[in-house]
Parts: sequence; C-alpha cells; structure tokens
Amino acid sequence: MTFLAKLDVKLPIIQAPMVGVSTPAMAAAVSNAGALGSIGVGAVDAKGAREMILATKQLTDKSFNVNVFCHKPAIANAQRESAWLSRLKPEFAKFGAEPPGKLQEIYKSFVEDDAMLDLFLETRPKVVSFHFGLPLQIKVDRLKDAGIVLFGSATNLDEAKQLVDAGVDAVVAQGYEAGGHRGMFEPTQSDDCLSAAALTRVLVSTLTVPVIAAGGIMDGATIAAYLKLGAVACQLGTAFIDCAESSADKYFRATLHSDAAFHTVMTPVISGRPARCLANSFTAFGADVDPSEIPDYPIAYDAGKSLNAAAKNADQGGYGAQWAGQGAPLARSLPAAELIAQLQREIDETIR
Amino acid sequence: MTFLAKLDVKLPIIQAPMVGVSTPAMAAAVSNAGALGSIGVGAVDAKGAREMILATKQLTDKSFNVNVFCHKPAIANAQRESAWLSRLKPEFAKFGAEPPGKLQEIYKSFVEDDAMLDLFLETRPKVVSFHFGLPLQIKVDRLKDAGIVLFGSATNLDEAKQLVDAGVDAVVAQGYEAGGHRGMFEPTQSDDCLSAAALTRVLVSTLTVPVIAAGGIMDGATIAAYLKLGAVACQLGTAFIDCAESSADKYFRATLHSDAAFHTVMTPVISGRPARCLANSFTAFGADVDPSEIPDYPIAYDAGKSLNAAAKNADQGGYGAQWAGQGAPLARSLPAAELIAQLQREIDETIR
Repeated sequence: MTFLAKLDVKLPIIQAPMVGVSTPAMAAAVSNAGALGSIGVGAVDAKGAREMILATKQLTDKSFNVNVFCHKPAIANAQRESAWLSRLKPEFAKFGAEPPGKLQEIYKSFVEDDAMLDLFLETRPKVVSFHFGLPLQIKVDRLKDAGIVLFGSATNLDEAKQLVDAGVDAVVAQGYEAGGHRGMFEPTQSDDCLSAAALTRVLVSTLTVPVIAAGGIMDGATIAAYLKLGAVACQLGTAFIDCAESSADKYFRATLHSDAAFHTVMTPVISGRPARCLANSFTAFGADVDPSEIPDYPIAYDAGKSLNAAAKNADQGGYGAQWAGQGAPLARSLPAAELIAQLQREIDETIR
Repeated sequence: MTFLAKLDVKLPIIQAPMVGVSTPAMAAAVSNAGALGSIGVGAVDAKGAREMILATKQLTDKSFNVNVFCHKPAIANAQRESAWLSRLKPEFAKFGAEPPGKLQEIYKSFVEDDAMLDLFLETRPKVVSFHFGLPLQIKVDRLKDAGIVLFGSATNLDEAKQLVDAGVDAVVAQGYEAGGHRGMFEPTQSDDCLSAAALTRVLVSTLTVPVIAAGGIMDGATIAAYLKLGAVACQLGTAFIDCAESSADKYFRATLHSDAAFHTVMTPVISGRPARCLANSFTAFGADVDPSEIPDYPIAYDAGKSLNAAAKNADQGGYGAQWAGQGAPLARSLPAAELIAQLQREIDETIR
C-alpha cells in the first residue's frame, strides 16, 4: 500500500497549511477533490483550533492535515522590544498611528501547549504536521499511539534526520523558494538556503521515509517533475492564495498578481523569523534592518500585525504578511476544487 | 528538427564550462559521449583560448561550447584595494606569507576583447555562451552571422528577456543553487535568489526560446525532472568536478566529498562577484565581510588567488575557489564518458 493510499488520499497534492490564508472551507474542498487539505492552528489556542477542526469535519469526511508551530518559546527582551517599537514609529506615523505601548508573545508554541495536544488526541485528525522543529518525544509518541500520521518540515538533512529519529512518518522538504515561514529549527543558525529540488534529491537519496517536496510548485508539470525526483507528493501553498476559499485580503490578492510576485523576499522583519513575502513596503523597510534588532518570534509579529492594521485603516496593504513563494508569478484564481482538477489534468498530460 | 538535433547533440546534457575545472579533454570526452562539452575561456586571453579550442578540436569533431565572461570591466579603486589587502594580511600571515603589494584586473571581459571575437569568427566553435551579461549587439550579430549558436545565462526573467532581445538562441536558467559565479548582470543589484526549478518554470512559461536548466543537477532522475518542467536540456557542473579529466586539485576533490558539500556558501569574497563555494576557510572568513569592502571582480580574485597559493604552499587547501552547487553531496568520481553513460541510463530508467 502506498503512503498516499494509507492516508486515503488519491492525488500527490497537499494544500499547504497557511495561517491567515487557508480555511476549513479550503481544506475541505481540497480533500473532497482527492488531495490533502490542511489547516494551520499556529495562531489560535486549543479552543480556536477545535472550532477549525470541527468546521473542517463538517465539510468533509476525508483526511486532512492540522499544522502546528513547534518553535522554541520566545524570550522577551524589554529593551530590544522598546527599541523595535521606536524603530517602527516612523512607519506607523505614515498612517497617523502610534505603535502599541508593549508587545506580547501572541501565539503559544505547540511545544508548551498541552491543551492542543489533548484536542488532537480527542479529535484525531488524520495528519498532524510540525513546523519549526519538534515537540517533546512524549508528545510525538502520544500522537503516534493515537494513530495520527505525522509530517515534519525540514530545510536540510540534519533537521530531516531529527524528524525521522523522532518517528515522523514523512518529511516535508521545504526549499528556500517556499513562501511563508522558513521551517528551520534554529532561526539564528546559518541557512544553507537549499532549493526544493536539491533538498528533495538529497533527502530521497538518504532517508527511508517518504519525502514531500515544497517550494515554488504551482502547476501539474512541476508536480510531475518532483515525482521524478522521488517525492511522494508536493505541497503547494502560493497556488491557493487566490482561491475563492482563501482568507487572503484584497491587498494580498492584488499584490500577488503584480510585479511584486517576481521579487519575493526572505525577511525576518515581519514576524521575527525568516519568511518569504511578496516584495512590499514592509520587506523594503526590512532591507536596512539588522536581524539582531528584531524581537523574538512571535513577539515581533505583534508589532507587524499592528503596523499592518494601521496601514489597512488608511487603505494601504503594503505592510501585510503577504507570504508567497518564488512561483508567485504563476498564481491562478480558481476555486480550490477546480484548481485541484486542473493540477490533476496537468500531471496526467505531463506524465503521458 | 529539435534544438539539440540542430546542435548535433544527442543527449539533453551540457557539461558546464568551469574555469579551473573543465578542460579540453573533459569537453571532448563529454561531446564524444553524445552530450555537449564546454570549455571556459574567461581566464585566458585569445592566445590561450586558441590553444584550448584547438586542443578540444583535436580530441573531438563533435559540437562543443566555449564560454566567455561579459562582466562590466572592473573599476579600480586604489584605496579600497589597499584596505582589502590589509584586511587579508592576517590570513596570509597564517601561512607565513605577505599579501601582494598591488592588485590587477587579471582577466579581460569579452565585452572589450576584440581578439577573442576574431578568434571565434575564425575557429567557429558550434556554441558560444555568455555569462554575466551580453557583449555589444554588433558582437552578438557577428557571431550569429558566422553561424555560431549562442547561449546566455540568466538568473531572472528580466535578464532572460535581454538575452532573447539580443538574439541569443537559448537561455541557461541559472538557479540560486548553482555552483560557481552567479550570472547576474549587475552584481550590486538585489538578487531574487530564484531556484532553478522556479526560474525554469517561469522562463518556459514566458519565453519562446529553449531553456536550459542549471543548478544542483547531479543525476539522471533530476535531468528527467527538469525535462518535465519544460527545459530542453540540463547543464551540470559540480557533477564533473571529480572526473578524471578535471583539473580540480586534490584539496578541492577531498572537500567535495566531505561534510562541506552539505554547506555551500554564496560569497563575493573570493573573486569580487557572488559565487557558490564549498564551505571552507575562505567562505568562513567571508561571513564577516561587508560586500562594499571587496574590490571589483576580477581585481579581488587576484588577491584570492594569491592567498590560495600561499595556503597551498603550506599544504592547506581551504582558500581555494572550490565552486560547487547544492547538489555537491551527490558528486561521483567517474571518468566523464562513464558519467555521461550513467546519466543516460538514469534518465531512461526515470522516464520509463
């Protein structure tokens, strides 16, 4: 039985979990269309996650994936945070606004969120996936014992081996071209910036677990190519940003279809961790920022979200976390189910 | 007639021109085996290039490719060069050596080398390829009028369009994962760091000329994957470093098969232009260098080569220009003809 068959998934396509973009409606539409839909619960607590999981289950009885963030909890640094707010003050001022007085660690990492673990053990989504690392082994074991299939993101062979050693069932090979947060376990370590193809090929050549390719994948020809590289499936995020079921705002959608799509930028300035974003006012601001100035993830994200809210109040969308990968120029505007059907046709045409 | 058939090349494989690694013997062995061999003449004058072209022609009557560097000629800056030599002094001192008193522009760009143009018009290699940009249109036209097929490297769509507008016959899509010098036309411009797959897919979707994929490609499965992406051929460099016909020194070969292969680094510190190198003492030194300190290419390269010579004198290989791509962990040690035969088998197995 193939890996996908075990997941009860027909197509080698995974819709990436994208906090702020993916929705229960998107995940369900994707899963109902024969691929694997995902929701990201990194920005909600167990109560919010319960609502999202139940909403997804109401819309599909197929498998879906729930993604959690496993970053080391933030270390607050009042001096750095205060300096950061001063640094952002002129940006807020552009919109007649003031930075908040204080920043919070707005999201709890799954590594310290026992209520989230309990929720998963109760609701048993088919797949749970880890980003930014791994939780304690006991948590991994409890999820596995509950029959939940586990994915983990890796940006290099060393991280992939840690995931495999912990018992993860499949590794998501996240290339440097991928949109959104780079999954590196230690964001301060130097990054080898491996492309999805280079990383996939090294992982497939080394590991015995299935490898899922991620980064810059927008169409069926590219999925077919990564299957030739030995991936069992491809994870696509940017391809779904402009779907009807996406919660991306109008500014994000417009920027996706602009020249900015040709110039995505890896920047830690928006959230406190390196993430690939469409070129916008926030990434331009970030070009002059030394990473050491930026508060820990997700404390910096609190500031970034305030700044975006101030800008949107003035009908400016340039400070959004407009996460997108290098395939952005090839983004399409289709309902999720139609996109999956189109991808399937393209895979078939390419393989034929 | 397909593009490769017009070149009289059977296999969709191009051995990358690599100054310091590729040789007439390598290019001829590759071309004789049914792929397209290449020599790089960026580090020699027309007299040296004549010797290389004639040596290649003595070993094969098949098509081969001659690569030239089309960078903007260096602008000397005595103050910066002197400061740079002071900066390198402690590195030289590690080997009981002194930096040279003065740095030279050690290579002439093809954009100002009329003798090289005359040599090509006389010897008529089947293919001439441009790196770092384009020569004047009159030179492009004269090469085309002589029946020479032209390739040009691009790192983004804008550069690719410039190549096509100038009349280049095929674009080499150089991904960020590629080893050696990044072909960007303007090294001081910000780099979108597009992966080979993302760039190939955008170029194939936009251009009407053939696209050759380059970067991190080490085996037949990966070549088959890039053909699915729409490339007409793949250009492989790192795969040939440890061939018998390579002029790579023993230090380079040993480093290629070490842990350094997992950690290639894009650095301008060795030559003055960004280039991807195996992690070594020189790339580690470069981590603390501000790019504005580094003299123009190839003036900085004069210093880099002196430092490497001093280190090798002390039997240390860590300051070499050990250019390699992100596929380096998959490097094999085979004679070039055997590598081509192996790649062909792998392509056939993957497509079957």
